[in-house]
Amino acid sequence: MKMIIVGASGTMGKYLTGAFEKEHEVISVNSKDGHIPTDITSPEAIEKMFSQAGPFDALICTAGPSFVGPWKNLNDQSFRKGIEGKLMGQINLVLIGQHYINPGGSFTLITGALTHTPQRGFANAAAANGAVEAFVRAAAIELGRGIRINAVSPTVIEDSPQYFPFFPGEIPTTMKALEYGFRRSIFGAGTGQVIQP
Amino acid sequence: MKMIIVGASGTMGKYLTGAFEKEHEVISVNSKDGHIPTDITSPEAIEKMFSQAGPFDALICTAGPSFVGPWKNLNDQSFRKGIEGKLMGQINLVLIGQHYINPGGSFTLITGALTHTPQRGFANAAAANGAVEAFVRAAAIELGRGIRINAVSPTVIEDSPQYFPFFPGEIPTTMKALEYGFRRSIFGAGTGQVIQP
Ligand SMILES: NC(=O)c1ccc[n+]([C@@H]2O[C@H](COP(=O)([O-])OP(=O)(O)OC[C@H]3O[C@@H](n4cnc5c(N)ncnc54)[C@H](OP(=O)(O)O)[C@@H]3O)[C@@H](O)[C@H]2O)c1
Ligand SMILES: NC(=O)c1ccc[n+]([C@@H]2O[C@H](COP(=O)([O-])OP(=O)(O)OC[C@H]3O[C@@H](n4cnc5c(N)ncnc54)[C@H](OP(=O)(O)O)[C@@H]3O)[C@@H](O)[C@H]2O)c1
Repeated sequence: MKMIIVGASGTMGKYLTGAFEKEHEVISVNSKDGHIPTDITSPEAIEKMFSQAGPFDALICTAGPSFVGPWKNLNDQSFRKGIEGKLMGQINLVLIGQHYINPGGSFTLITGALTHTPQRGFANAAAANGAVEAFVRAAAIELGRGIRINAVSPTVIEDSPQYFPFFPGEIPTTMKALEYGFRRSIFGAGTGQVIQP
Repeated sequence: MKMIIVGASGTMGKYLTGAFEKEHEVISVNSKDGHIPTDITSPEAIEKMFSQAGPFDALICTAGPSFVGPWKNLNDQSFRKGIEGKLMGQINLVLIGQHYINPGGSFTLITGALTHTPQRGFANAAAANGAVEAFVRAAAIELGRGIRINAVSPTVIEDSPQYFPFFPGEIPTTMKALEYGFRRSIFGAGTGQVIQP
């Protein structure tokens, strides 16, 4: 299978790349490096990335920048970080990528438990997650050619201990469970699902 | 109680204004007319509206423009209609309005059943809804001074028969039920709720 992993240099992306590249052709995409560097906040850069990558079977996105910080610093401008990044960035990967993906291919986007379990300082990520999850359900009934789309929605992950203090009472998602969440989306038959690994 | 109704000239807004103005002071806000015309896609216009309205007890928003149309016409540009309108428009009403609202006041935003029950042609509204609902949960744990925030999420409403064909199998929400959904948010004690009237 030919897979594009957007955010391949990140905490999640590195682990998933390691897990999948043993058996699949993985094209890594980050903002600063990877096989094809791309800025997902730019539709033109996304279009260029897909035309360089050529037809593919699965797109996995673990790139989703958002504003993290005190509520009092949240305003129209700071809120745009998650709107342009985690929200429009991922949605544009689908709206543009649908013209490059092979029939029967899949899109798997990243959201997170914040959609339903808010934590202080993360309202921007929560809103982006909610949008992406609703978009995934909506896109599943629109995409043709057997193309599937799901979101993976973990809580704070094992390999991000720096975030543990901000997620009191949340049992971290193991990297293995995260990988299996993505496996279910990529290799399963489900579509329009929000997978909680 | 002093209430601001944004979208007061719309199908929902007209009904709610009629219901609430008997017992409360209602300030109506629309893009083209009302007591204070405002474009919610502009943070500057929102700021100006609040400073003209002065301190208030409840903000009700039933203005939430989004792109409705065939999936094939959805792209970065058309998607912006719901992003700037239903999503950032409503979120900015809260981020800015929190500095004008009285202690113990409430924000009630509009979403819709599309968050969880997608219909063809409405992916943009679905995404905006999902963002607003997650934002409402997140903002509820951040807003101080006893300020509450909820969303009302009806399916297609009784007074919008032109939309019935696009919502097969959905029993329309009566206008009375819609009003009572808003009543629960405005006069109840709940916060961070998505109210399905
Ligand atoms: N970590 C957690 O505990 C956790 C839990 C639940 C959900 N999440 C969500 O999962 C996602 C990934 O988390 P993570 O911890 O793996 O993040 P991370 O370590 O910060 O990695 C982010 C990745 O995304 C890429 N990226 C960032 N902005 C980009 C852009 N504009 N265009 C293209 N690539 C871009 C980065 O590449 P460059 O470095 O080259 O920019 C990097 O590869 C985030 O959306 C986060 O909200 C994380
Ligand atoms: N109708 C339904 O069956 C239904 C069901 C579920 C959810 N919803 C949602 O509920 C909301 C309202 O629906 P509706 O049928 O009542 O809508 P509507 O009849 O089209 O009314 C929209 C109202 O919002 C105002 N408005 C639009 N854009 C604005 C802007 N940029 N700034 C300020 N005000 C603006 C309009 O004022 P002007 O005319 O002056 O622009 C009007 O007062 C929408 O978000 C819709 O998605 C509707």
